[in-house]
Parts: sequence; C-alpha cells; structure tokens
Amino acid sequence: MKNKFLVLQTDFGLADGAVSAMQGVAYSVAPEVTISHLTHEIQPYNIHDASYRLFQTVQYWPAGTVFVSVVDPGVGSNRRSIVAKTSAGQYIVTPDNGTLAYVAKYVGLEVVKEINEEKNRLPHSEESHTFHGRDVYVYNGALIADDEVYFNQLEKEVPVDSVVQLDISEPHLEEGVIHGVIDILDIRFGSLWTNIPLDLVKQAGIQAGDTLSVRIYHNGIKHYDNQLLFGHSFADVPVGETVAYTNSLIRLAVAINQQNFSKVYGIGTGNEWQIEVKKVEKGECTHE
Amino acid sequence: MKNKFLVLQTDFGLADGAVSAMQGVAYSVAPEVTISHLTHEIQPYNIHDASYRLFQTVQYWPAGTVFVSVVDPGVGSNRRSIVAKTSAGQYIVTPDNGTLAYVAKYVGLEVVKEINEEKNRLPHSEESHTFHGRDVYVYNGALIADDEVYFNQLEKEVPVDSVVQLDISEPHLEEGVIHGVIDILDIRFGSLWTNIPLDLVKQAGIQAGDTLSVRIYHNGIKHYDNQLLFGHSFADVPVGETVAYTNSLIRLAVAINQQNFSKVYGIGTGNEWQIEVKKVEKGECTHE
Amino acid sequence: MKNKFLVLQTDFGLADGAVSAMQGVAYSVAPEVTISHLTHEIQPYNIHDASYRLFQTVQYWPAGTVFVSVVDPGVGSNRRSIVAKTSAGQYIVTPDNGTLAYVAKYVGLEVVKEINEEKNRLPHSEESHTFHGRDVYVYNGALIADDEVYFNQLEKEVPVDSVVQLDISEPHLEEGVIHGVIDILDIRFGSLWTNIPLDLVKQAGIQAGDTLSVRIYHNGIKHYDNQLLFGHSFADVPVGETVAYTNSLIRLAVAINQQNFSKVYGIGTGNEWQIEVKKVEKGECTHE
Repeated sequence: MKNKFLVLQTDFGLADGAVSAMQGVAYSVAPEVTISHLTHEIQPYNIHDASYRLFQTVQYWPAGTVFVSVVDPGVGSNRRSIVAKTSAGQYIVTPDNGTLAYVAKYVGLEVVKEINEEKNRLPHSEESHTFHGRDVYVYNGALIADDEVYFNQLEKEVPVDSVVQLDISEPHLEEGVIHGVIDILDIRFGSLWTNIPLDLVKQAGIQAGDTLSVRIYHNGIKHYDNQLLFGHSFADVPVGETVAYTNSLIRLAVAINQQNFSKVYGIGTGNEWQIEVKKVEKGECTHE
Repeated sequence: MKNKFLVLQTDFGLADGAVSAMQGVAYSVAPEVTISHLTHEIQPYNIHDASYRLFQTVQYWPAGTVFVSVVDPGVGSNRRSIVAKTSAGQYIVTPDNGTLAYVAKYVGLEVVKEINEEKNRLPHSEESHTFHGRDVYVYNGALIADDEVYFNQLEKEVPVDSVVQLDISEPHLEEGVIHGVIDILDIRFGSLWTNIPLDLVKQAGIQAGDTLSVRIYHNGIKHYDNQLLFGHSFADVPVGETVAYTNSLIRLAVAINQQNFSKVYGIGTGNEWQIEVKKVEKGECTHE
Repeated sequence: MKNKFLVLQTDFGLADGAVSAMQGVAYSVAPEVTISHLTHEIQPYNIHDASYRLFQTVQYWPAGTVFVSVVDPGVGSNRRSIVAKTSAGQYIVTPDNGTLAYVAKYVGLEVVKEINEEKNRLPHSEESHTFHGRDVYVYNGALIADDEVYFNQLEKEVPVDSVVQLDISEPHLEEGVIHGVIDILDIRFGSLWTNIPLDLVKQAGIQAGDTLSVRIYHNGIKHYDNQLLFGHSFADVPVGETVAYTNSLIRLAVAINQQNFSKVYGIGTGNEWQIEVKKVEKGECTHE
C-alpha cells in the first residue's frame, strides 16, 4: 500500500538547497512517503497566493494527502504552527498566517491542531531559528503522511475559527450586474481568474454564446471596458481575440486566445482589481 | 513490481497549481504510479519544441512508460485527443496537434487510439472546458500507466498516418556540402543542435579532428561563416572557442566552450535557420 | 523496503529534456529508485555553488542516499569521474573538479573510487561524448542506489586526499574581531551566508541580543559598515531592518527582514567578499 502523499509548497525557489534539505528530512523520518511539489515559486512572503494555490489543488488529491506549505515571513515570531484537516480529509501543515484562509472558506476545515515547535521538531535542530520548513513543518508533515495516528496524538486542538483569515471578497449580483474581483492569474498564460462562480453567472441569466459587457476597475477607476463572448474555451474566438469563459475551478475568467490578457492590458490581482459583468441583450447599445 | 512510470510535459510552468492538480488526479486514479517531469517550461503554444523534447527523451525510458504532453493551444476546439504507442513500447497521451511528429518520424508509432473526451475523463469535470491536461490527458495517462489493459480497451483505433505532422526538414549531402537546419537549442548552454545525423557527417568523409567550414543562413541570408574544429567535446578547444561536435542525440552540433553560441551570434532555431557544413581540405583556401 | 534514494543536481536547467533523459536511464537500470532533485539551476559551470549545495543538503539525507552532481565544464577532458562515500554514509557521483570540496572539508569522505568511463557506462552510448550526466554519472549512481555492492565492486580506489579541492577560506578570531567571507546566498531572499560558525561567534563573547558591528569589504575595500542586532530570526527586527542571525547551517548570516540584503547593498559572494564582525560594547562609540 503506497499511498502516503506529501506535497510541498514554499516561496523558497528551487535554486538553492532548501527544498532538498526538507525532502531529506521527510524521507529520513518516513522513508515510504511519496513527495510531490505544488510550487516553490510563490512570490516571497505572498501568503494570499500560497493560500489560493492550496485551494486550487487540495481537492484533486486523495484523502490523507499531507500538504506542507511554508510561506512564513513571521518565522521566529510567535505566530502559531498548525495542522488542519480539511473536510475532504487532506492535511495542511503551515504557519497560521492566513495560508489556510481559502481552503477554510471554500473547502472547509474539520479539525485544527497546534504544533509545539519546541517538542515536535527535528532532533538536534534547536539552534536553528529561521528554517521551520525543514525543522518543524516537513518533519511533522512527513510523520502525519506516514501515519495519521501522529496527527491524532498531537495534543493541542484549537478552534477551527481561530485560524487566521484573509480579506476574501464576496461576489454579488445586483440589478443584473455581477460584481467581483480578480483573485489571481493563470500565470503562464495571463488569464484573469475572478471570484465569480459559474452558479452566479447562471443566476444572472448568462449562458454560453452570450455577449458580456466586462468592465475592470483598479480601486474604483475604470481600467478596461469591452464586450466579450462568453465561450466554452479560448478556441471559440480567433487567436488574439478576448473571451470570457468558465475556468478549471468553475469560476468566471477572462483571456485572450494565445496571448496574455494581464500583460496586454496591465491588469493585476487582489481586492483592488474589481470586475463588473453583465449580459448584453441583443440589440442593446452599451455605450453610455 | 514498481514500474508504472508517468512522465508529464506541459507549457504550464510550475508557478501555479496546474501541474500539481494533474498529479493529484493521477495519484487518485492510480496511487502506485511514479510521476516524473520532462519539462513544464515549453514556451507557451510551442508544439515544435514539445515534439522535439519527447523525441529527445522517450527512448531513454523503459517500455510501458506513459508520457502525457499538454501543449494545447486548441483546447476546446475539435482537435483530437489521442494516445500513441511507440515502436519502442512507450505511450504518449496528447492533443493531436503535431506533438507526435518527431517521435513518429524518428522513433516510429505502432498503434494510435483516440480518446473520447466525453466518456474517458475525470468524473464530475464536465463543466471545465479549458484544462484537458487535468480532466482528460493525465486522467487517461495514469490509467494506462497503471494497467496497459486500459489502452487496449480504448475502442477507437485510428491510422498511424492520420496523426498531425510538422514540417520536419530533411538534411542532405550535395557535392561534399551537408545542408541542414538548426532544430533546437541545448537551452542552458546555447549550443545549436542541427538535424544532421553523424552518419551523414561520416558519409561526407568528415571525422574527428577535421576542420569544418560552417555557414549559417537566416532565410537564405548568410549570418555566420567560420572554420571550426570537429571535436569530440567542448574541452577539445580552449574556453571561449567555437567547436563542432556530435551531440547526445548523435547529431551534429555547434558550441562555444563555456559560452552561449546562440546568444553570442544571435542565432535561433527552426527551418528558417539553415546550416551548411563541409570539410576543409588541408591547404585549402576557403575565402571566396 | 523502499529506501533507494537518488538525488540529482546539475547546471542543465529544467527547460529541455536533459534531466528527464537522465531519469529515464536511472529507472531503466534501477526501476525501484526514488529520484529527487537538489537543484538544476546551478549557474552554468559554477563548481563552487554545486559544491556548497551538496554540503547544505547531504547530511539531511539517510545514509545510502546517492547524489549525482553534474556541473562538468571539463566533460570530454581527462578530468576523472569519481564516487565518494561520505563519513555519514551518503554517496556522491561527480566529475572530480572541486564539486566534492565542501563535503570533503565539512562532512568528510571515507572512500573514493574512480569510474572507468569506457567500461562503466550506459550501453551503446559510446558515440556520445558530451553528456556524461546521462551516459556515465546517473547510470552509475542509479546502480549504486539500487545496490551498494556495485560501489564495493568498483575496482579502482583512489586516495581521499587526491580529490580536487577548492580554495575554501577559513574564518578566524583576532583581537575580538571575527574575520570571514560571504560564502553564498540564500538565493530567493538575498541573505548573506558567511563561513563563520556559531561556535566562533560564541568564542568572541557574542550572544543573542547583542549589537554587532558588521563591515563588508570587496577585495579589501569597505563596501558596507553598520551596526546590527544579533537576533534569533528576521522577526526580531521590524520589516525593512537589517539583522544578523544564525542560519540553518548554524553559521552567521546577515539579512533584511522581508527584503533582499544582497540586492539592496550590491553584495556578492566568494572569497573576494570579506566580512568583519565584532560585538559593540554598551556605551561604545564605534565611529573611528
């Protein structure tokens, strides 16, 4: 039975030895784990993106998979080290700094335990205070991946709602207009991923083949205003044309077929990038 | 028996969660596969390079290995999804868009089957139309890696010669001059890899230690003209000197010892970059 | 018993097929090895950094782990190919070009054997002279990972002190001032890692909470001069402030909390970047 999955995410990059030292520790305490990598290219200290990438992937992994996510600007401070068990049965080991926010909101957490950084750590690592990824997180993560009993035996359970949250914006539908934000990019391709679920799109009476009015604002100032086909995929429009579509997380997204929307229009991510979407009725003039 | 190799190649990069979601799907349907990565840094939409990288690597893997290659600018169009079994026994799961061309030409395909994108896909993924890497390709690839019977049971066999081809240029020898093209780069080091096999070099009467006249043309316009030693390796010339050699695919290549030939001379790849090579006879004056 | 770890390091990058071809060879000769990656982003030809990254990681891996490190500017020359067994029981397969220097000095080597490049190589690879990573190093590394008997049967043992060394600078304490060099960076975060072990810091009477005078010289010319807290971690100072701390290898390091010290102050690595550290006594005026 080879089913002990350990998935690592950090902002360490892969150019030095940090991630490999973590893997060595994991295999030393749990030689039979299967190690995989979510990404190590999270922008340094970007807790939001680390949180989102966990949400993007965690549900595609078997129950019992252990994620270790180390984006930890507060290493050495009194921020807690925790392990959460999701409602779908995966574990996430991480500093409690907001990294769990997206999974907490959209997947759900079942149990959260605190790790005692003095006691539950790599033996003989006590003089090291800056690499909890190696000395604390992957060490505990590998032990849980090896045997879930280790999780059960962690003594200190903490309330699920004590976990540090992020300011995650809620989309809403008002007088036929959907209001949302640009959560994150499909990085290599530059498509904008919004926080607007397909259900809300349907609720607005929009279906594939409709034309949408899409407006993007930066802190309230209009930055982009155009009409787009709501297609199934990029291939529904010619190369170089814009298209709205349902992305792989079943949320509304905006792209240019075979080009980079984010770069072409200079649009970023976060709650300061708002998007408004409405259906253009046939024959309607959308100019104000 | 741990011998279920699944090798992934995409143009997704590793900075977001796409490749990890694919791995989660693979492990969910086939927990015992061993996942490896060819590269995820194929330039977006560059089918040629994806095709070449498969040719560069597939033969070094055991029979039964399953490659999943997803460079898929036509996702959502009516391009086919296929699985090819190579003459050497590896499988390649990919959109049928040219990705198989180099392997088809230089390794050979034995059987090709079409994947039914509606039926052979990750359950509950039907609202997702833009991530066939996760929902179709890796799902099918993992099932084949887990048990080749799955491949045999795919119902729709298609003719090997129906697979989409690329315009792969043929080198030839004419009056002592070898005519070829620069296929691709040894990326990190900037060496030029040509389509000229060592056999053709030998046929031109060239052997290690000879001096070669090397001319490189961009769409017929001469871009580089020099005499180079045909050595065994970079170390046959001083640091900073140019050298011609037989690369790891047993084809003619051109490099600068410890420098980047492609950058120094501004030379790219593709059929528009032609190369002419001939042996310089002792005492010959090569100036025209 | 799944405990056959093979760890790869190169300067090949991951953008082409080189590293995947190496993995295919490894699995072909030893299907049960577990392959992991130290890094493939060593700057081309940078033997020093390859050597340091092995030192940074090797001790965190179980005895019996086989590292294959291929930074090999001299491929095709008469530099030796060797395998070293460390004092802690890991193996390192590498060209003998200085790559072993840090591990030899700080971990220790127990036995070193030479690989016969003609005899101990991938069958049918004799026409390839430029990719010993695939044809020689990973081939031998995988066989050792599969069964240590293969190492024992390599015939030619060579003296441990015949291994090529690098000019590794020794730190020293003189009249209360510690003299060292900047060995390498914590790449993603830009912290400077010195060659000064915590023991020497303690010997200088310095403890956490002290203020240090830190001076950095480039080839003897003063480049940076400031007073820093010697803290446990970055979080001991506000964001944007400098701090000295003990890094994860238990050596003195210098950082800016959540910024990049190396970039902000334009400081590099190597023996030409010297650092002087002394304790600032309370009430002392450090201006000269």
